[in-house]
Amino acid sequence: MVNFNSISFEKEVFIVKIPEGDIALKKKSDLKYFFEPKSIAVIGSFKEGFFGGYVVVKSLLNAGFAGEIYPVNPSYKEVLGLKVYPSIKDITEEIDLVLIIINCRAVPGVMRECVERRIKAAIVVADGFAERDEEGARLQKEILKIARHNGMRIVGPNTAGIANPAKGLIPNPYEIGYERLKTGGIAICGQTGMINPQAFPYDDLHYGVSKLCDFGNKSDVDECDMLEYLENDPATKVITMYLESIGDGRRFLEISKGVASKKPVLILKSGRTKEGAHVSTSHTGSLAVDDQIFNAACKQTGVIRLKNFLELFELPKIFAYQPLPKGNRLAMVTFTGGVGVIAIDEVTKYHLSIATLSPETETKLNAIFPGLGKTIVDIGPAMVLSNNYTEIYSKILKDVLADDEIDCIFNVIWVGPSGKYVEDYLKFYKELQGRYQKTIATWIYGPKIPFLNEMAYQLEDLGFPVFSNIEMAIKALGIACQYAMARREKSDEAASHNQ
Amino acid sequence: MVNFNSISFEKEVFIVKIPEGDIALKKKSDLKYFFEPKSIAVIGSFKEGFFGGYVVVKSLLNAGFAGEIYPVNPSYKEVLGLKVYPSIKDITEEIDLVLIIINCRAVPGVMRECVERRIKAAIVVADGFAERDEEGARLQKEILKIARHNGMRIVGPNTAGIANPAKGLIPNPYEIGYERLKTGGIAICGQTGMINPQAFPYDDLHYGVSKLCDFGNKSDVDECDMLEYLENDPATKVITMYLESIGDGRRFLEISKGVASKKPVLILKSGRTKEGAHVSTSHTGSLAVDDQIFNAACKQTGVIRLKNFLELFELPKIFAYQPLPKGNRLAMVTFTGGVGVIAIDEVTKYHLSIATLSPETETKLNAIFPGLGKTIVDIGPAMVLSNNYTEIYSKILKDVLADDEIDCIFNVIWVGPSGKYVEDYLKFYKELQGRYQKTIATWIYGPKIPFLNEMAYQLEDLGFPVFSNIEMAIKALGIACQYAMARREKSDEAASHNQ
Repeated sequence: MVNFNSISFEKEVFIVKIPEGDIALKKKSDLKYFFEPKSIAVIGSFKEGFFGGYVVVKSLLNAGFAGEIYPVNPSYKEVLGLKVYPSIKDITEEIDLVLIIINCRAVPGVMRECVERRIKAAIVVADGFAERDEEGARLQKEILKIARHNGMRIVGPNTAGIANPAKGLIPNPYEIGYERLKTGGIAICGQTGMINPQAFPYDDLHYGVSKLCDFGNKSDVDECDMLEYLENDPATKVITMYLESIGDGRRFLEISKGVASKKPVLILKSGRTKEGAHVSTSHTGSLAVDDQIFNAACKQTGVIRLKNFLELFELPKIFAYQPLPKGNRLAMVTFTGGVGVIAIDEVTKYHLSIATLSPETETKLNAIFPGLGKTIVDIGPAMVLSNNYTEIYSKILKDVLADDEIDCIFNVIWVGPSGKYVEDYLKFYKELQGRYQKTIATWIYGPKIPFLNEMAYQLEDLGFPVFSNIEMAIKALGIACQYAMARREKSDEAASHNQ
Repeated sequence: MVNFNSISFEKEVFIVKIPEGDIALKKKSDLKYFFEPKSIAVIGSFKEGFFGGYVVVKSLLNAGFAGEIYPVNPSYKEVLGLKVYPSIKDITEEIDLVLIIINCRAVPGVMRECVERRIKAAIVVADGFAERDEEGARLQKEILKIARHNGMRIVGPNTAGIANPAKGLIPNPYEIGYERLKTGGIAICGQTGMINPQAFPYDDLHYGVSKLCDFGNKSDVDECDMLEYLENDPATKVITMYLESIGDGRRFLEISKGVASKKPVLILKSGRTKEGAHVSTSHTGSLAVDDQIFNAACKQTGVIRLKNFLELFELPKIFAYQPLPKGNRLAMVTFTGGVGVIAIDEVTKYHLSIATLSPETETKLNAIFPGLGKTIVDIGPAMVLSNNYTEIYSKILKDVLADDEIDCIFNVIWVGPSGKYVEDYLKFYKELQGRYQKTIATWIYGPKIPFLNEMAYQLEDLGFPVFSNIEMAIKALGIACQYAMARREKSDEAASHNQ
């Protein structure tokens, strides 16, 4: 067992600590008020701009939030057609969630009014807390005490908030420039606003999200709370997180192990270096955890550790869209040998093995073109001779997919500059839907130019993830195989215990 | 000295070997006929299609090649308004370069006619040689002998060819979908067609290329020849290569050392693993070199080794567009702390050190917003309060750029969903042109959606490279600092020798 408690943290004056006993007040069921509120009060300024209470209300309206919205500000009468209440006390109806986006010094007072109204959940967008200075740290401690003693939960402070697109709940404080956030199976949580919709235009990217949560300063709701919540969230197929620190190491070990055995958990943790950890402390006021210990914790719990920011958004797609591979035998279909060589170099990093095609498939492929039935199915030479490129391509891919000797496939698509094959590919991928129980990762040859982007989104809408580079596609298959293998081992273990 | 000759290669029947003595016939000056021909003969089919002689002629015409084009094929009279000659013997004018794109079995005969005409350079696009089978290996040996005994050089066979966009020389055998290839300082060579314009729409990407060369099966012209040629090519500022094998290890060591001291040489070598190396052999018929030895060779010669396919196209930009850093002190300007933490984790991988801003800069920045003058200049909190975001941004960036305590800068641009700041940024970057001798790497926050792509290209047109992710931007600055440092050490050494 990795002992998180043995870590010696650097002292940092701004860190907020609340007496141990008070943590017992946390209740996991509380998070439902954040993600499924029937009503939300927004306390802030309603001046138009790219940030603020006005934007929150507008985002909620645009996204079609079906619950009640109560804007609160004594200086306004109306915003976007909604009545503005002078104070939270003037709202007679029940309030599930409050979003506070005012000067930090005014937050404790407002929080007291909220607990009087028995509000159970607060998103504190306001900044100027532990990330700023000692005074801010004191304020953060104050609001945390108010919440803890009254059974209220806090996301933040210094957060861009949360989102549940399926409910039209996008109380985003920054202008995001689009209305709806696409609903899907990926939950994204982060100790940064970088994961939020103003940073990543999920909708434009056809990126389907189940829940979003920016922990901000992570004074209360943290990675463990979200893991527990998302474990039982039926909309979430895969959980991905960006963390700079771990709030409670022991709890993290326990919870993540349980969750990872049900759903893939992918974590990018920065602050890996002493330098990075120091900066992390100063921007969200959180403690960083020793990096190697975190590595060991991931191995022990089955959490998949990510390496960079791009992976955070790309790798979860393999779990959200594709079935888990039944084994680790990988086939490749490409039209240029170079891609195959690069891909094979990557393969050896994971527990993937290069599939040997069955003799039947080999024979079928060699009949299409001499030498095609190799480890890497290189369509290139055959394609130059063919009059109908996509016909030969689809025939080859189907032959490979039907082979019982393979579990997953790296498929390289060549579109050509005119884009004339796009429709053919889309039609063909539509045919593949649900037909073969193989895990498919696709790379579209070439850089991200607009029409290839668009094609990638359309393939993903059909359920086939497209990765932005060769290595990412192979890694996606690699982690899918590793995860599937770990799950199988666990269930075998469980089965043998039950005998 | 690393001994390449001690490497034990796996035996492979298809490998073509030419007696040692014949290599002496190689002359480096010969490559000028490939890249600066006054005339080019194209021997192939002139049927319309996406691949073939027709496409080669069309590409040359579209790109505005100023030399003579002689299509050759006994079955045609005219193609695209040009007279077609029945055979190479029927052309009375001088021919500098020939491009052969016919059935492999017919290539030796045509090659003999070419040497009779004293043609000095042949691009053999035709495939079916050492990459295919023993018969192909025999054919490859045959054409190589013909060339070697007559002072002719070969690029290929099994190549997509070469390009020199400044001369309108884009004899591309595949339809590329655009006319001109943007001219710039980056030379790209590869043992794969993946680097060619049909794979990477360089022009659409605003990616400026000096020379392109696909080695194909690399029977003759190889990485060493190209390094020698590009060393003295004034249009080339940085050389980047994708290799699966090294033709002559000893020669590579000597040549790359010399070239790298003049221009940055970046190499992505795949076939790193035994599995990858095996596949590499079967697709271009070349020998792979032991990976660790290659690593050592890079360290010794100053070659910068790349890690993946994306880096091949992104990292050279730092050398092509920006001045070399004078030291390794890195500053960061971002508007979100998370980016800073991720970036700092990366920084420690290279010889970069986080700059400490001068007290003057610190004071100036803190006057703009309390706490702004930190290691990582996080504009975030200040920007939310400002009415004019880009004004405050440009003021801050200029203050940092003017600081004598920094050598290079990682700059994170936030555009916002509406794209309304794009024009402001472009105007501001224009002001920076040539003004500060600092190396700037930019990342535009968010994924690659069309309008951000477009903005990135416009910034690059102004001379400021934009990288597709945080880690890539930091690595670009890291390798630029390492290269600059190595160059300074070398010139210090040279100076002390001269004293």
